[in-house]
Amino acid sequence: MTTATDRLAPPLRDLARLSLNQYTTQRWSVAEAVEGCARAGIPAIGLWRDKVAETGLARSAQIVRDAGLRVSSLCRGGMFPAATEAERRARIEDNRRAIDEAAELGTDVLVLVCGGQPDRDLDGARQMVEDGIAALIPYAAGHGVRLGIEPLHPMFTADRSVIVTLAQANALVERLGSPQVGVVIDAYHVWWDPQVYAGIARAAGHILGFHVDDWLVPPPDVLLGRGMMGDGAIELRRLRTAVEQAGYHGWIEVEIFNRAIWDAPGDEVLALLCARYLEYV
Amino acid sequence: MTTATDRLAPPLRDLARLSLNQYTTQRWSVAEAVEGCARAGIPAIGLWRDKVAETGLARSAQIVRDAGLRVSSLCRGGMFPAATEAERRARIEDNRRAIDEAAELGTDVLVLVCGGQPDRDLDGARQMVEDGIAALIPYAAGHGVRLGIEPLHPMFTADRSVIVTLAQANALVERLGSPQVGVVIDAYHVWWDPQVYAGIARAAGHILGFHVDDWLVPPPDVLLGRGMMGDGAIELRRLRTAVEQAGYHGWIEVEIFNRAIWDAPGDEVLALLCARYLEYV
Repeated sequence: MTTATDRLAPPLRDLARLSLNQYTTQRWSVAEAVEGCARAGIPAIGLWRDKVAETGLARSAQIVRDAGLRVSSLCRGGMFPAATEAERRARIEDNRRAIDEAAELGTDVLVLVCGGQPDRDLDGARQMVEDGIAALIPYAAGHGVRLGIEPLHPMFTADRSVIVTLAQANALVERLGSPQVGVVIDAYHVWWDPQVYAGIARAAGHILGFHVDDWLVPPPDVLLGRGMMGDGAIELRRLRTAVEQAGYHGWIEVEIFNRAIWDAPGDEVLALLCARYLEYV
Repeated sequence: MTTATDRLAPPLRDLARLSLNQYTTQRWSVAEAVEGCARAGIPAIGLWRDKVAETGLARSAQIVRDAGLRVSSLCRGGMFPAATEAERRARIEDNRRAIDEAAELGTDVLVLVCGGQPDRDLDGARQMVEDGIAALIPYAAGHGVRLGIEPLHPMFTADRSVIVTLAQANALVERLGSPQVGVVIDAYHVWWDPQVYAGIARAAGHILGFHVDDWLVPPPDVLLGRGMMGDGAIELRRLRTAVEQAGYHGWIEVEIFNRAIWDAPGDEVLALLCARYLEYV
Protein backbone atom coordinates (compact mmCIF):
# COMPACT_ATOMS: atom_id res chain seq x y z
CA MET A 1 0.00 0.00 0.00
CA THR A 2 2.87 2.35 0.79
CA THR A 3 6.44 2.45 -0.34
CA ALA A 4 8.31 0.09 1.91
CA THR A 5 11.04 1.30 4.20
CA ASP A 6 12.66 -2.07 4.57
CA ARG A 7 15.41 -1.28 6.98
CA LEU A 8 15.03 1.31 9.71
CA ALA A 9 17.83 3.72 10.44
CA PRO A 10 19.66 3.12 13.73
CA PRO A 11 18.74 5.36 16.68
CA LEU A 12 20.31 8.80 16.77
CA ARG A 13 23.35 8.66 19.02
CA ASP A 14 23.44 12.27 20.16
CA LEU A 15 21.53 15.55 20.10
CA ALA A 16 23.56 17.09 17.26
CA ARG A 17 20.51 17.45 14.97
CA LEU A 18 17.93 18.27 17.64
CA SER A 19 16.10 21.58 17.70
CA LEU A 20 13.51 22.80 20.19
CA ASN A 21 10.58 24.43 18.47
CA GLN A 22 9.86 27.04 21.08
CA TYR A 23 6.10 26.46 21.09
CA THR A 24 6.83 23.16 22.85
CA THR A 25 7.68 25.30 25.86
CA GLN A 26 5.05 27.87 25.09
CA ARG A 27 5.24 29.72 28.43
CA TRP A 28 8.93 30.48 28.05
CA SER A 29 10.25 33.71 26.54
CA VAL A 30 12.97 33.59 23.90
CA ALA A 31 15.62 34.09 26.59
CA GLU A 32 14.17 31.36 28.82
CA ALA A 33 13.92 28.90 25.92
CA VAL A 34 17.48 29.65 24.80
CA GLU A 35 18.79 29.17 28.33
CA GLY A 36 16.79 25.96 28.63
CA CYS A 37 18.32 24.62 25.42
CA ALA A 38 21.81 25.53 26.59
CA ARG A 39 21.26 23.69 29.90
CA ALA A 40 19.85 20.63 28.11
CA GLY A 41 22.54 20.47 25.43
CA ILE A 42 20.11 21.19 22.61
CA PRO A 43 22.06 22.96 19.86
CA ALA A 44 19.25 24.71 17.96
CA ILE A 45 15.91 26.42 18.37
CA GLY A 46 12.91 27.03 16.11
CA LEU A 47 11.57 30.49 16.90
CA TRP A 48 8.06 31.94 16.62
CA ARG A 49 7.37 35.46 15.45
CA ASP A 50 5.04 36.35 18.33
CA LYS A 51 7.65 35.30 20.88
CA VAL A 52 10.39 37.16 19.00
CA ALA A 53 8.19 40.28 18.91
CA GLU A 54 7.71 40.15 22.70
CA THR A 55 11.47 40.17 23.24
CA GLY A 56 12.36 42.36 20.28
CA LEU A 57 13.93 41.19 17.03
CA ALA A 58 17.50 42.47 17.48
CA ARG A 59 17.55 41.42 21.14
CA SER A 60 16.27 37.91 20.25
CA ALA A 61 18.96 37.52 17.60
CA GLN A 62 21.57 38.64 20.11
CA ILE A 63 20.36 36.22 22.81
CA VAL A 64 20.54 33.27 20.44
CA ARG A 65 23.97 34.26 19.11
CA ASP A 66 25.40 34.85 22.56
CA ALA A 67 24.31 31.36 23.63
CA GLY A 68 25.96 29.82 20.58
CA LEU A 69 22.63 28.35 19.41
CA ARG A 70 21.55 27.94 15.81
CA VAL A 71 18.08 28.93 14.60
CA SER A 72 16.58 26.01 12.68
CA SER A 73 13.57 27.93 11.37
CA LEU A 74 11.17 30.77 11.98
CA CYS A 75 7.44 30.06 12.40
CA ARG A 76 5.41 31.22 10.73
CA GLY A 77 4.62 32.85 7.47
CA GLY A 78 1.69 31.95 5.27
CA MET A 79 -2.03 32.61 5.89
CA PHE A 80 -2.41 33.75 2.28
CA PRO A 81 -6.14 33.31 1.55
CA ALA A 82 -8.38 36.24 2.42
CA ALA A 83 -11.73 37.52 1.24
CA THR A 84 -10.43 40.70 -0.38
CA GLU A 85 -7.58 41.62 -2.69
CA ALA A 86 -6.43 44.30 -0.23
CA GLU A 87 -6.26 41.80 2.62
CA ARG A 88 -4.37 39.32 0.47
CA ARG A 89 -1.83 42.03 -0.39
CA ALA A 90 -1.49 42.89 3.30
CA ARG A 91 -0.76 39.25 4.09
CA ILE A 92 1.96 39.06 1.43
CA GLU A 93 3.46 42.23 2.90
CA ASP A 94 3.40 40.62 6.34
CA ASN A 95 5.22 37.63 4.89
CA ARG A 96 7.92 39.98 3.60
CA ARG A 97 8.40 41.17 7.19
CA ALA A 98 8.66 37.53 8.26
CA ILE A 99 11.40 37.02 5.67
CA ASP A 100 13.25 40.08 7.03
CA GLU A 101 12.98 38.63 10.53
CA ALA A 102 14.19 35.18 9.48
CA ALA A 103 17.23 36.71 7.82
CA GLU A 104 18.05 38.86 10.86
CA LEU A 105 17.62 35.87 13.20
CA GLY A 106 20.09 33.90 11.11
CA THR A 107 17.86 31.16 9.76
CA ASP A 108 17.29 30.41 6.10
CA VAL A 109 13.91 28.68 6.62
CA LEU A 110 10.56 30.41 7.05
CA VAL A 111 7.85 27.83 7.78
CA LEU A 112 4.60 28.52 5.95
CA VAL A 113 1.24 27.64 7.50
CA CYS A 114 -0.59 28.42 4.32
CA GLY A 115 -4.00 29.49 5.64
CA GLY A 116 -7.59 28.24 5.57
CA GLN A 117 -10.50 29.10 3.32
CA PRO A 118 -12.12 32.52 3.78
CA ASP A 119 -15.40 31.20 2.36
CA ARG A 120 -16.85 27.96 1.00
CA ASP A 121 -14.46 27.75 -1.97
CA LEU A 122 -11.60 25.36 -1.38
CA ASP A 123 -10.11 25.49 -4.88
CA GLY A 124 -10.15 29.29 -4.75
CA ALA A 125 -8.30 29.32 -1.43
CA ARG A 126 -5.73 26.87 -2.77
CA GLN A 127 -5.11 29.18 -5.71
CA MET A 128 -4.60 32.11 -3.33
CA VAL A 129 -1.91 30.12 -1.53
CA GLU A 130 -0.10 29.42 -4.78
CA ASP A 131 -0.35 33.04 -5.89
CA GLY A 132 0.85 34.26 -2.50
CA ILE A 133 3.93 32.05 -2.43
CA ALA A 134 4.75 32.94 -6.04
CA ALA A 135 4.61 36.63 -5.15
CA LEU A 136 7.10 36.11 -2.29
CA ILE A 137 9.78 34.20 -4.18
CA PRO A 138 11.87 37.14 -5.44
CA TYR A 139 11.92 38.79 -2.00
CA ALA A 140 12.83 35.49 -0.31
CA ALA A 141 15.64 34.93 -2.83
CA GLY A 142 16.97 38.42 -2.22
CA HIS A 143 17.22 37.69 1.50
CA GLY A 144 18.56 34.14 1.28
CA VAL A 145 15.46 32.72 2.96
CA ARG A 146 13.67 29.61 1.77
CA LEU A 147 9.92 29.11 2.12
CA GLY A 148 8.93 25.80 3.69
CA ILE A 149 5.39 24.74 2.83
CA GLU A 150 4.15 22.67 5.77
CA PRO A 151 1.15 20.53 4.86
CA LEU A 152 -1.09 20.49 7.91
CA HIS A 153 -3.36 17.67 9.05
CA PRO A 154 -6.64 17.67 7.10
CA MET A 155 -8.56 18.58 10.26
CA PHE A 156 -7.07 22.09 9.86
CA THR A 157 -8.21 22.54 6.24
CA ALA A 158 -10.94 25.08 6.93
CA ASP A 159 -9.19 27.37 9.37
CA ARG A 160 -5.40 26.92 9.14
CA SER A 161 -4.13 25.30 5.95
CA VAL A 162 -5.82 24.27 2.73
CA ILE A 163 -2.54 22.48 1.96
CA VAL A 164 -3.07 19.13 3.69
CA THR A 165 -0.99 16.45 1.99
CA LEU A 166 2.61 16.08 1.02
CA ALA A 167 1.51 15.23 -2.54
CA GLN A 168 -0.21 18.59 -2.74
CA ALA A 169 2.79 20.46 -1.25
CA ASN A 170 5.19 18.66 -3.61
CA ALA A 171 3.03 19.53 -6.61
CA LEU A 172 3.02 23.16 -5.51
CA VAL A 173 6.82 23.17 -5.16
CA GLU A 174 7.17 21.58 -8.59
CA ARG A 175 4.81 24.08 -10.24
CA LEU A 176 6.53 27.06 -8.61
CA GLY A 177 9.87 25.67 -9.79
CA SER A 178 12.09 27.79 -7.53
CA PRO A 179 14.97 26.61 -5.33
CA GLN A 180 13.55 29.09 -2.81
CA VAL A 181 10.52 26.87 -2.11
CA GLY A 182 10.37 23.48 -0.40
CA VAL A 183 8.40 21.48 2.15
CA VAL A 184 8.49 21.03 5.90
CA ILE A 185 7.41 17.56 7.01
CA ASP A 186 5.76 17.26 10.43
CA ALA A 187 5.08 13.71 11.57
CA TYR A 188 1.79 14.65 13.29
CA HIS A 189 0.40 16.21 10.13
CA VAL A 190 1.36 13.52 7.60
CA TRP A 191 1.65 10.14 9.35
CA TRP A 192 -1.90 8.98 8.46
CA ASP A 193 -1.41 9.42 4.70
CA PRO A 194 -1.37 6.19 2.63
CA GLN A 195 0.96 8.07 0.26
CA VAL A 196 3.31 9.55 2.86
CA TYR A 197 6.37 7.49 1.95
CA ALA A 198 5.87 8.14 -1.75
CA GLY A 199 5.51 11.81 -0.86
CA ILE A 200 8.73 11.90 1.15
CA ALA A 201 10.63 10.23 -1.69
CA ARG A 202 9.21 12.74 -4.15
CA ALA A 203 10.27 15.60 -1.87
CA ALA A 204 13.94 14.63 -2.22
CA GLY A 205 15.99 17.75 -2.77
CA HIS A 206 13.41 20.16 -1.38
CA ILE A 207 12.89 19.04 2.22
CA LEU A 208 13.57 22.09 4.39
CA GLY A 209 12.61 20.71 7.79
CA PHE A 210 11.45 17.66 9.73
CA HIS A 211 9.27 18.02 12.83
CA VAL A 212 8.55 15.28 15.34
CA ASP A 213 5.80 14.81 17.94
CA ASP A 214 3.12 12.13 18.28
CA TRP A 215 -0.58 11.40 17.73
CA LEU A 216 -2.34 10.54 20.98
CA VAL A 217 -5.17 7.99 20.98
CA PRO A 218 -7.80 9.28 21.28
CA PRO A 219 -6.69 12.86 20.63
CA PRO A 220 -7.55 14.98 23.69
CA ASP A 221 -8.05 18.15 21.64
CA VAL A 222 -8.06 19.30 18.01
CA LEU A 223 -5.48 22.05 18.40
CA LEU A 224 -3.65 21.26 21.63
CA GLY A 225 -3.68 17.47 21.59
CA ARG A 226 -0.25 16.60 20.25
CA GLY A 227 1.81 14.12 22.17
CA MET A 228 5.40 13.60 23.23
CA MET A 229 7.31 11.23 20.95
CA GLY A 230 6.63 7.65 21.99
CA ASP A 231 3.26 8.37 23.59
CA GLY A 232 1.21 7.83 20.47
CA ALA A 233 0.50 6.08 17.20
CA ILE A 234 3.21 7.35 14.87
CA GLU A 235 6.07 5.25 13.44
CA LEU A 236 8.61 8.01 14.00
CA ARG A 237 11.74 5.99 13.27
CA ARG A 238 10.28 4.88 9.96
CA LEU A 239 9.45 8.45 8.99
CA ARG A 240 12.95 9.65 9.90
CA THR A 241 14.44 6.79 7.90
CA ALA A 242 12.42 7.82 4.86
CA VAL A 243 13.33 11.48 5.24
CA GLU A 244 17.03 10.56 5.43
CA GLN A 245 16.72 8.23 2.44
CA ALA A 246 15.35 11.27 0.60
CA GLY A 247 18.60 13.05 1.43
CA TYR A 248 17.56 15.23 4.36
CA HIS A 249 20.07 15.31 7.20
CA GLY A 250 19.20 18.70 8.67
CA TRP A 251 17.54 19.78 11.91
CA ILE A 252 14.88 17.68 13.59
CA GLU A 253 12.55 20.02 15.44
CA VAL A 254 10.37 18.90 18.31
CA GLU A 255 7.10 20.79 18.09
CA ILE A 256 4.38 19.80 20.56
CA PHE A 257 1.20 21.80 21.09
CA ASN A 258 -0.16 20.31 24.28
CA ARG A 259 -1.56 22.12 27.28
CA ALA A 260 -0.29 19.58 29.82
CA ILE A 261 3.23 19.87 28.39
CA TRP A 262 2.94 23.67 28.37
CA ASP A 263 1.98 23.54 32.06
CA ALA A 264 4.93 21.31 33.03
CA PRO A 265 8.28 22.80 34.15
CA GLY A 266 10.30 23.57 31.02
CA ASP A 267 13.49 21.83 32.13
CA GLU A 268 11.57 18.61 32.81
CA VAL A 269 9.95 18.81 29.37
CA LEU A 270 13.36 19.24 27.75
CA ALA A 271 14.88 16.32 29.65
CA LEU A 272 12.02 14.03 28.63
CA LEU A 273 12.10 15.31 25.07
CA CYS A 274 15.82 14.55 24.71
CA ALA A 275 15.36 11.02 26.06
CA ARG A 276 12.37 10.32 23.82
CA TYR A 277 14.18 11.75 20.81
CA LEU A 278 17.00 9.26 21.26
CA GLU A 279 14.59 6.38 21.94
CA TYR A 280 11.84 6.88 19.36
CA VAL A 281 12.95 9.18 16.55
CA MET B 1 -5.82 21.20 -8.56
CA THR B 2 -9.03 19.16 -8.52
CA THR B 3 -11.28 17.88 -11.25
CA ALA B 4 -13.65 20.71 -12.04
CA THR B 5 -17.37 20.36 -11.51
CA ASP B 6 -18.29 23.10 -13.89
CA ARG B 7 -22.02 23.17 -13.52
CA LEU B 8 -23.72 22.43 -10.23
CA ALA B 9 -26.80 20.25 -10.14
CA PRO B 10 -30.04 22.11 -9.36
CA PRO B 11 -31.37 21.86 -5.80
CA LEU B 12 -33.29 18.74 -4.89
CA ARG B 13 -37.00 19.46 -5.23
CA ASP B 14 -38.35 16.98 -2.73
CA LEU B 15 -37.36 14.52 -0.01
CA ALA B 16 -37.63 11.41 -2.23
CA ARG B 17 -33.93 10.48 -1.78
CA LEU B 18 -33.54 11.61 1.83
CA SER B 19 -32.69 9.17 4.59
CA LEU B 20 -32.25 9.86 8.30
CA ASN B 21 -29.21 8.14 9.68
CA GLN B 22 -30.58 7.37 13.11
CA TYR B 23 -27.47 8.54 14.96
CA THR B 24 -28.47 12.09 14.01
CA THR B 25 -31.27 11.65 16.56
CA GLN B 26 -29.16 9.57 18.86
CA ARG B 27 -31.54 9.66 21.83
CA TRP B 28 -34.43 8.17 19.87
CA SER B 29 -35.17 4.44 19.78
CA VAL B 30 -35.83 2.73 16.46
CA ALA B 31 -39.59 3.20 16.95
CA GLU B 32 -39.22 6.89 17.83
CA ALA B 33 -36.93 7.55 14.86
CA VAL B 34 -39.27 5.71 12.47
CA GLU B 35 -42.26 7.67 13.78
CA GLY B 36 -40.27 10.90 13.48
CA CYS B 37 -39.42 10.12 9.85
CA ALA B 38 -43.05 9.33 9.08
CA ARG B 39 -44.17 12.66 10.61
CA ALA B 40 -41.48 14.59 8.70
CA GLY B 41 -42.08 12.90 5.35
CA ILE B 42 -38.64 11.28 5.27
CA PRO B 43 -38.94 8.05 3.29
CA ALA B 44 -35.91 6.11 4.55
CA ILE B 45 -33.76 5.46 7.58
CA GLY B 46 -30.19 4.35 8.14
CA LEU B 47 -30.17 2.04 11.16
CA TRP B 48 -27.44 1.30 13.72
CA ARG B 49 -26.84 -2.14 15.16
CA ASP B 50 -26.78 -1.02 18.79
CA LYS B 51 -30.14 0.70 18.40
CA VAL B 52 -31.59 -2.31 16.59
CA ALA B 53 -30.32 -4.59 19.35
CA GLU B 54 -32.07 -2.49 22.01
CA THR B 55 -35.40 -2.89 20.23
CA GLY B 56 -34.79 -6.40 18.91
CA LEU B 57 -34.01 -7.33 15.34
CA ALA B 58 -37.35 -8.82 14.24
CA ARG B 59 -39.29 -6.09 16.04
CA SER B 60 -37.14 -3.35 14.42
CA ALA B 61 -37.71 -4.83 10.96
CA GLN B 62 -41.44 -4.97 11.67
CA ILE B 63 -41.61 -1.36 12.88
CA VAL B 64 -39.86 -0.09 9.75
CA ARG B 65 -42.03 -2.21 7.43
CA ASP B 66 -45.26 -1.19 9.15
CA ALA B 67 -44.37 2.48 8.71
CA GLY B 68 -43.69 1.95 4.99
CA LEU B 69 -40.10 3.18 5.40
CA ARG B 70 -37.09 1.89 3.48
CA VAL B 71 -33.81 1.05 5.18
CA SER B 72 -30.99 2.81 3.32
CA SER B 73 -28.16 1.07 5.16
CA LEU B 74 -27.08 -0.62 8.36
CA CYS B 75 -24.20 0.87 10.40
CA ARG B 76 -21.81 -0.59 11.06
CA GLY B 77 -19.62 -3.50 10.23
CA GLY B 78 -15.85 -3.34 10.04
CA MET B 79 -13.35 -2.93 12.89
CA PHE B 80 -11.18 -5.65 11.36
CA PRO B 81 -7.68 -5.00 12.79
CA ALA B 82 -6.90 -6.64 16.12
CA ALA B 83 -3.75 -7.73 17.91
CA THR B 84 -4.41 -11.47 17.73
CA GLU B 85 -5.55 -13.90 15.08
CA ALA B 86 -8.35 -15.14 17.36
CA GLU B 87 -9.67 -11.63 17.84
CA ARG B 88 -9.53 -10.94 14.11
CA ARG B 89 -11.55 -14.10 13.48
CA ALA B 90 -14.08 -13.03 16.11
CA ARG B 91 -14.47 -9.69 14.36
CA ILE B 92 -15.11 -11.34 11.01
CA GLU B 93 -17.71 -13.53 12.70
CA ASP B 94 -19.35 -10.42 14.15
CA ASN B 95 -19.45 -8.95 10.65
CA ARG B 96 -21.30 -12.06 9.47
CA ARG B 97 -23.94 -11.34 12.13
CA ALA B 98 -24.12 -7.76 10.82
CA ILE B 99 -24.75 -9.12 7.32
CA ASP B 100 -27.55 -11.34 8.70
CA GLU B 101 -29.08 -8.31 10.38
CA ALA B 102 -28.83 -6.13 7.27
CA ALA B 103 -30.62 -8.81 5.24
CA GLU B 104 -33.37 -9.21 7.81
CA LEU B 105 -33.84 -5.43 8.06
CA GLY B 106 -34.30 -5.26 4.31
CA THR B 107 -31.25 -3.25 3.31
CA ASP B 108 -28.56 -4.36 0.91
CA VAL B 109 -25.84 -2.05 2.28
CA LEU B 110 -23.70 -2.70 5.34
CA VAL B 111 -21.51 0.33 6.07
CA LEU B 112 -17.97 -0.61 7.08
CA VAL B 113 -16.02 1.50 9.54
CA CYS B 114 -12.87 -0.45 8.94
CA GLY B 115 -11.07 -0.07 12.28
CA GLY B 116 -7.94 1.58 13.65
CA GLN B 117 -4.46 0.22 14.30
CA PRO B 118 -4.03 -2.16 17.24
CA ASP B 119 -0.36 -1.18 17.55
CA ARG B 120 2.15 1.12 15.84
CA ASP B 121 1.97 -0.62 12.45
CA LEU B 122 -0.24 1.19 10.00
CA ASP B 123 0.55 -0.96 6.95
CA GLY B 124 -0.18 -4.09 8.97
CA ALA B 125 -3.56 -2.75 10.09
CA ARG B 126 -4.42 -1.82 6.51
CA GLN B 127 -3.64 -5.36 5.41
CA MET B 128 -5.92 -6.73 8.15
CA VAL B 129 -8.75 -4.61 6.77
CA GLU B 130 -8.23 -5.97 3.28
CA ASP B 131 -8.04 -9.55 4.54
CA GLY B 132 -11.15 -9.08 6.67
CA ILE B 133 -13.27 -7.72 3.83
CA ALA B 134 -12.01 -10.44 1.48
CA ALA B 135 -13.06 -13.08 4.01
CA LEU B 136 -16.59 -11.64 4.17
CA ILE B 137 -17.35 -11.45 0.45
CA PRO B 138 -18.81 -14.95 -0.06
CA TYR B 139 -21.10 -14.60 2.96
CA ALA B 140 -22.22 -11.14 1.87
CA ALA B 141 -22.94 -12.40 -1.64
CA GLY B 142 -24.98 -15.28 -0.25
CA HIS B 143 -27.15 -12.82 1.66
CA GLY B 144 -27.49 -10.18 -1.05
CA VAL B 145 -25.70 -7.58 1.08
CA ARG B 146 -23.04 -5.23 -0.25
CA LEU B 147 -20.15 -4.00 1.86
CA GLY B 148 -19.68 -0.23 1.77
CA ILE B 149 -16.16 0.87 2.70
CA GLU B 150 -16.47 4.32 4.26
CA PRO B 151 -13.18 6.20 4.29
CA LEU B 152 -13.12 8.17 7.53
CA HIS B 153 -11.46 11.53 8.14
CA PRO B 154 -7.71 11.11 8.76
CA MET B 155 -8.15 12.28 12.35
CA PHE B 156 -9.72 8.86 13.02
CA THR B 157 -6.81 6.84 11.57
CA ALA B 158 -5.47 5.52 14.85
CA ASP B 159 -8.69 4.53 16.58
CA ARG B 160 -11.49 4.11 14.04
CA SER B 161 -10.40 3.64 10.44
CA VAL B 162 -7.03 3.17 8.80
CA ILE B 163 -8.91 3.73 5.52
CA VAL B 164 -8.89 7.52 5.24
CA THR B 165 -9.09 8.55 1.60
CA LEU B 166 -11.38 7.74 -1.28
CA ALA B 167 -8.31 6.86 -3.38
CA GLN B 168 -7.42 4.22 -0.81
CA ALA B 169 -10.98 2.86 -0.62
CA ASN B 170 -11.26 2.77 -4.42
CA ALA B 171 -7.96 0.90 -4.70
CA LEU B 172 -9.22 -1.62 -2.14
CA VAL B 173 -12.46 -2.11 -4.07
CA GLU B 174 -10.50 -2.58 -7.30
CA ARG B 175 -8.12 -5.09 -5.75
CA LEU B 176 -10.95 -7.09 -4.17
CA GLY B 177 -12.70 -7.10 -7.54
CA SER B 178 -16.14 -8.14 -6.29
CA PRO B 179 -19.51 -6.53 -7.11
CA GLN B 180 -20.24 -7.10 -3.42
CA VAL B 181 -17.83 -4.34 -2.34
CA GLY B 182 -18.09 -0.59 -2.86
CA VAL B 183 -17.62 2.74 -1.12
CA VAL B 184 -19.75 5.01 1.03
CA ILE B 185 -18.92 8.68 0.61
CA ASP B 186 -19.48 10.95 3.61
CA ALA B 187 -18.95 14.65 2.93
CA TYR B 188 -17.47 15.29 6.40
CA HIS B 189 -14.84 12.64 5.94
CA VAL B 190 -13.68 13.45 2.40
CA TRP B 191 -14.33 17.15 1.65
CA TRP B 192 -10.77 18.30 2.51
CA ASP B 193 -9.09 15.93 0.03
CA PRO B 194 -7.38 17.62 -2.97
CA GLN B 195 -8.22 14.41 -4.89
CA VAL B 196 -11.85 14.07 -3.80
CA TYR B 197 -13.41 14.81 -7.18
CA ALA B 198 -11.02 12.46 -8.94
CA GLY B 199 -11.88 9.88 -6.30
CA ILE B 200 -15.61 10.26 -6.80
CA ALA B 201 -15.24 9.89 -10.56
CA ARG B 202 -13.12 6.78 -10.07
CA ALA B 203 -15.78 5.34 -7.75
CA ALA B 204 -18.35 5.34 -10.57
CA GLY B 205 -20.23 2.05 -10.51
CA HIS B 206 -19.38 1.18 -6.92
CA ILE B 207 -20.82 4.05 -4.87
CA LEU B 208 -23.14 2.46 -2.30
CA GLY B 209 -24.08 5.51 -0.26
CA PHE B 210 -23.71 9.25 0.11
CA HIS B 211 -23.80 10.90 3.54
CA VAL B 212 -24.17 14.62 4.18
CA ASP B 213 -23.38 16.83 7.18
CA ASP B 214 -20.95 19.74 7.59
CA TRP B 215 -17.54 20.72 8.97
CA LEU B 216 -17.85 23.39 11.65
CA VAL B 217 -15.14 26.07 11.97
CA PRO B 218 -13.42 25.60 14.31
CA PRO B 219 -14.55 22.05 15.07
CA PRO B 220 -15.99 21.95 18.62
CA ASP B 221 -14.97 18.32 19.19
CA VAL B 222 -13.09 15.52 17.43
CA LEU B 223 -15.87 12.94 17.62
CA LEU B 224 -19.04 14.94 18.25
CA GLY B 225 -18.33 18.10 16.31
CA ARG B 226 -20.15 17.55 13.04
CA GLY B 227 -22.47 20.25 11.84
CA MET B 228 -25.86 20.59 10.21
CA MET B 229 -25.67 21.09 6.46
CA GLY B 230 -25.11 24.77 5.70
CA ASP B 231 -23.45 25.57 9.03
CA GLY B 232 -19.91 24.79 7.91
CA ALA B 233 -17.17 24.75 5.34
CA ILE B 234 -18.24 22.02 2.90
CA GLU B 235 -19.34 22.57 -0.71
CA LEU B 236 -22.18 20.06 -0.40
CA ARG B 237 -23.92 20.86 -3.68
CA ARG B 238 -20.67 20.38 -5.54
CA LEU B 239 -20.07 17.01 -3.90
CA ARG B 240 -23.61 15.85 -4.71
CA THR B 241 -23.16 16.98 -8.29
CA ALA B 242 -19.97 14.94 -8.57
CA VAL B 243 -21.58 11.87 -6.99
CA GLU B 244 -24.48 12.10 -9.45
CA GLN B 245 -22.13 12.60 -12.39
CA ALA B 246 -20.51 9.35 -11.26
CA GLY B 247 -23.90 7.69 -11.67
CA TYR B 248 -25.12 7.50 -8.06
CA HIS B 249 -28.77 8.44 -7.64
CA GLY B 250 -29.52 6.49 -4.47
CA TRP B 251 -30.22 7.50 -0.88
CA ILE B 252 -28.67 10.59 0.66
CA GLU B 253 -28.26 9.96 4.37
CA VAL B 254 -27.98 12.75 6.89
CA GLU B 255 -25.56 11.63 9.58
CA ILE B 256 -24.61 14.20 12.23
CA PHE B 257 -22.72 13.33 15.39
CA ASN B 258 -23.19 16.46 17.49
CA ARG B 259 -24.11 16.70 21.14
CA ALA B 260 -26.14 19.90 20.76
CA ILE B 261 -28.20 18.31 17.98
CA TRP B 262 -28.63 15.14 20.05
CA ASP B 263 -29.93 17.28 22.92
CA ALA B 264 -32.46 19.15 20.74
CA PRO B 265 -36.05 17.86 20.31
CA GLY B 266 -36.02 15.27 17.51
CA ASP B 267 -38.89 16.74 15.53
CA GLU B 268 -37.17 20.13 15.43
CA VAL B 269 -33.94 18.51 14.24
CA LEU B 270 -35.82 16.72 11.45
CA ALA B 271 -37.62 19.88 10.34
CA LEU B 272 -34.33 21.80 10.16
CA LEU B 273 -32.59 18.90 8.46
CA CYS B 274 -35.23 18.70 5.72
CA ALA B 275 -35.00 22.45 5.07
CA ARG B 276 -31.21 22.43 4.96
CA TYR B 277 -31.20 19.36 2.71
CA LEU B 278 -33.27 21.21 0.13
CA GLU B 279 -31.24 24.41 0.49
CA TYR B 280 -27.63 23.17 0.65
CA VAL B 281 -27.32 19.60 -0.63
